[in-house]
Amino acid sequence: MDERLKKQLDFALEIDKEKNVFRQTHLSGHGRRENDAEHAWHMAVMAYLLREYANEEVDIARVMLMCLIHDIVEIDAGDTYAYDEENLKTQKAREDAAKERIFSLLPDDQKEELTALFDEFEAYETAESKFAHSLDNLQPLMLNNSNDGGDWAEHGVTAGTVYGRQRKTRLGSEKLFEVTDKIIKEHIRKGTLRE
Amino acid sequence: MDERLKKQLDFALEIDKEKNVFRQTHLSGHGRRENDAEHAWHMAVMAYLLREYANEEVDIARVMLMCLIHDIVEIDAGDTYAYDEENLKTQKAREDAAKERIFSLLPDDQKEELTALFDEFEAYETAESKFAHSLDNLQPLMLNNSNDGGDWAEHGVTAGTVYGRQRKTRLGSEKLFEVTDKIIKEHIRKGTLRE
Repeated sequence: MDERLKKQLDFALEIDKEKNVFRQTHLSGHGRRENDAEHAWHMAVMAYLLREYANEEVDIARVMLMCLIHDIVEIDAGDTYAYDEENLKTQKAREDAAKERIFSLLPDDQKEELTALFDEFEAYETAESKFAHSLDNLQPLMLNNSNDGGDWAEHGVTAGTVYGRQRKTRLGSEKLFEVTDKIIKEHIRKGTLRE
Repeated sequence: MDERLKKQLDFALEIDKEKNVFRQTHLSGHGRRENDAEHAWHMAVMAYLLREYANEEVDIARVMLMCLIHDIVEIDAGDTYAYDEENLKTQKAREDAAKERIFSLLPDDQKEELTALFDEFEAYETAESKFAHSLDNLQPLMLNNSNDGGDWAEHGVTAGTVYGRQRKTRLGSEKLFEVTDKIIKEHIRKGTLRE
């Protein structure tokens, strides 16, 4: 087998490990915790179906690919819960090392391409990145909402903390932020989310 | 919330159930069984990275979307193992009913679009469908190979049966079929796959 194809297949096998990185979100129906690969799949499908709500016109193939690869670094770096202040401090250093190791399995051109796409997602600047982040926020919110806000209760987060993250959904989609806002307000009203 | 967005979000929540449909393939490292959402994610990433090996030029965004949605019907119809003769007979009827129920959650235009894409995948005629099938075959083969062919041993399948399915990989990619052929021959030689 030629070297290029071998590298691509080595990478393909390596990322299988993303299925073992578990998140704080639980599946609908009060299910088990979700893993990164499932989350990425769900986000990508949702991005495609909800693309009409992006604030700016987006290259949807780019958004989907961004969704699919944005958590690969967590194979080494682990999942950092969005409301975990301590681990958030070291997140960047851990993810940078992981990015270098894992994407280096690929041929150079594809290493560069995926690294650039990952960095673009993280930078939160392009229309594609902002919309991908809207889905990164909405997908777990949707599951948590379906489970009566159990993930928030488990971690004792407050409405302010949740808004701190979820408010950025509006950078990618005003319309999807309306949904977000409605869900959060409902949980405050019901008392499942503390003010 | 307007009716269209509500329908889209209902569908998005419904497909969460795909994460509970388990396949016969085991994750690398002799892990647990893989589910459909993980499989779809893995296929879509592989399709993107290996697109240079498609026999014909493909619209890669279409291929990726096809990969992402091709197993949604299994939420109702269940996974049918590629070498399970009995269940293969009823597979189409079960999947048709599921397709109608699940895609009907979407607004009409998106129901039509996703149904057409699903049907295109199943029909095995377009360049995109053939290449998506190559990944649908290669991805579990790669995992099974990494686990010393344990999935074949568990089901007592023979090399002939495996070739029956895997041979069609060459319709989408001659190059990826070379990899497939090499893997199968190696397992025959090692005795993990019966002739």
